Amino acid sequence: MSAPSNLVSPLAPERFPDLPKVGGVEAAIGRAGLYKHVRPDLLLVRTAPGTRAAGVFTTNAVGSAPTDWCKDALAKSHGHARGLLANAGCANSFTGSVGYEANSRALETAASLLGLSDAHELLSASTGVIGVPLDDAKVRAALPDLAKALKPADWRECAEAIMTTDTYPKGSGGFASIDGKPVALAGIAKGSGMIAPNMATMLAFVFTDALLSPEVLKEILAEETARSFNIITVDADRSTNDCVLFYATGAAENAPIESASDPRLADFRAKFGALMLDLALQIVRDGEGATKFVTVRIEGARSDESAAKIARVVAESPLVKTAIAGEDANWGRIVMAVGRADEPIVKEKVAVRFGDIYAAKDGMAARDYDEAKMSAYMKRQDLEITVDVGAGSGKALIYTCDLTKRYVEINGDYRS
Amino acid sequence: MSAPSNLVSPLAPERFPDLPKVGGVEAAIGRAGLYKHVRPDLLLVRTAPGTRAAGVFTTNAVGSAPTDWCKDALAKSHGHARGLLANAGCANSFTGSVGYEANSRALETAASLLGLSDAHELLSASTGVIGVPLDDAKVRAALPDLAKALKPADWRECAEAIMTTDTYPKGSGGFASIDGKPVALAGIAKGSGMIAPNMATMLAFVFTDALLSPEVLKEILAEETARSFNIITVDADRSTNDCVLFYATGAAENAPIESASDPRLADFRAKFGALMLDLALQIVRDGEGATKFVTVRIEGARSDESAAKIARVVAESPLVKTAIAGEDANWGRIVMAVGRADEPIVKEKVAVRFGDIYAAKDGMAARDYDEAKMSAYMKRQDLEITVDVGAGSGKALIYTCDLTKRYVEINGDYRS
Repeated sequence: MSAPSNLVSPLAPERFPDLPKVGGVEAAIGRAGLYKHVRPDLLLVRTAPGTRAAGVFTTNAVGSAPTDWCKDALAKSHGHARGLLANAGCANSFTGSVGYEANSRALETAASLLGLSDAHELLSASTGVIGVPLDDAKVRAALPDLAKALKPADWRECAEAIMTTDTYPKGSGGFASIDGKPVALAGIAKGSGMIAPNMATMLAFVFTDALLSPEVLKEILAEETARSFNIITVDADRSTNDCVLFYATGAAENAPIESASDPRLADFRAKFGALMLDLALQIVRDGEGATKFVTVRIEGARSDESAAKIARVVAESPLVKTAIAGEDANWGRIVMAVGRADEPIVKEKVAVRFGDIYAAKDGMAARDYDEAKMSAYMKRQDLEITVDVGAGSGKALIYTCDLTKRYVEINGDYRS
Repeated sequence: MSAPSNLVSPLAPERFPDLPKVGGVEAAIGRAGLYKHVRPDLLLVRTAPGTRAAGVFTTNAVGSAPTDWCKDALAKSHGHARGLLANAGCANSFTGSVGYEANSRALETAASLLGLSDAHELLSASTGVIGVPLDDAKVRAALPDLAKALKPADWRECAEAIMTTDTYPKGSGGFASIDGKPVALAGIAKGSGMIAPNMATMLAFVFTDALLSPEVLKEILAEETARSFNIITVDADRSTNDCVLFYATGAAENAPIESASDPRLADFRAKFGALMLDLALQIVRDGEGATKFVTVRIEGARSDESAAKIARVVAESPLVKTAIAGEDANWGRIVMAVGRADEPIVKEKVAVRFGDIYAAKDGMAARDYDEAKMSAYMKRQDLEITVDVGAGSGKALIYTCDLTKRYVEINGDYRS
């Protein structure tokens, strides 16, 4: 079987957004030959001296050489970084010390080309096939050309260089105000399968020219990840390589900010949060084989945590997801999924609605259920499913997509 | 779209087994018109006076009218029952008191036709669409013909009458020895989607003519369910209607047995356990769209419980299941799934094998990995995946199947 062609997801945004230049960030792309198709698969970023950085990483117990590297590097540098080397094609996960050393050699070459004395000033990220150590010779051979080509980042080409089964490049950004001064924010992401809370096979890199302390960076990254990348799920499979990296170059020269709760950060945090959620939702909209974008809301749970658990079971139920693919408002399966979440519910009070059309109320089919109205609703690309479980006031939401034959097709023959 | 045709699963057994007559059990089938296709969808069983019965039921919090009924009935009768009324087509789950009363009326008609003074002497079971109350008028209209047609059970036709998306009828049975005397065992089951531990959209009814106390029945049913129906998973979705019912008529007139640990029960328990596992595995082999039967074994876990959790995550991972459908020994995805189970592992010691071919050893790809040998292995219908997670001596196994485009097709348009 030939590799599946990357037809663009029907849920894709119309175009890649216009993103600002971020002072102190240069980037270049190239081809190391790690990805199966002939296209750029390597991204090198150089950030200005003094750049602060923070990262959040997969909780998958297997992890990968790049995520292990980043954790070490950020600890050693106390939250500073001078750049990034990322590839699409080789996850370099489950490759033991062989893989770790190969990754280190690639980073050492990059550091030396950038004139850095310690490779740990660079961070590392990758996605791709698990279990194959990085062929660092290919990366090292490609790097000199990238180092020469560094220029103010062309975000679209950077986003394209990290794609794997993604069908479109993902970016988000704009300006925020700190003390009345504009600071730039730009982020790129990749991901479309193996996507689940905490986290997904996804990489996201966000850059700002704001001047922020490493502690501030770390805190707001963690908080906004919880409200974005950790509430999406495509297929419940959480990868070994996920990471979100956040760099702040300080080139905007705003007055230093040392606390995440500083009121001067309010607009920045709002814009950063919106950027993170935008990138996360773009990943869901590129869910492998997806034809529907679905928001699952759970209300009336015993607690917010209980609501989040129920939401996740509903969003990950293969029977719910296949019904949505079939444009079938199969609320019976939603009720089944709610019931198997092993969380407190009052079944006599359970209500299910699609948009604002009730399918079920008071623990049974809604009396005024309108099949024609519902069928029309289910043809939409963006759907909202809300379940009130009747047990309290806890709430949560999660974003997901449907499960189609195309998902099976893409994943039944990924390696060949 | 027309309803998918029920092509027989490639994993189906060659034929329906020869099952013994069980003294004290009569059955009849008929058509109430609850299932979407024209075929028998109603099963009535009458068991001899004095028959003991036990049941295990879904842990899904929503449940259904029939499972609620059975729990009440078995409590009232102190573990006795005179028969069963089952339908395929209407789950009668999430139907509130309307559904419960409709079910009660159907059972009252059946009880009256069988000359029973209390409808609670009968048990009740069903599968089908969730959220639609039972149309009991249809059932009551069909019942007189079934009551007249009662005869020693024809197990194959009984198994056929409870099928929904099943592609073949499922039966198992034989003889066991109690005190040197033969006792008969026969069981039937249905199920192919919404199948997961604790339990599945599955019904199983097992009959014996052995004389056993209600307590013995209950205890051995619970123990053997844990070793059979609770270690299978098709799609992680656990239904509202699952039940296993076990009837012992006493017609074999063996000496009474009052304790499950009575050594005279050894052969019976072994045969009963084998029957339960046989039925459970037939359900996996009829997993919707399945083309591969897969045994996942986890070894070297911190505890058996930890091993069971990891096994379940691997067996339910869409990425693992789609890889298997593609005959791809994608052990990287298996390692990913192990890593996301949030259980203790020692990643440097993790080993993965397919059959006895190692794909990974000591936390990385096996040095002697033989792609040709592995490719040949993956073409088999029955596969064994074993993962040693290097953290202890805990073990577990779970049975599952692959995830194919056909699964999506079947479940994307089930209701139409």
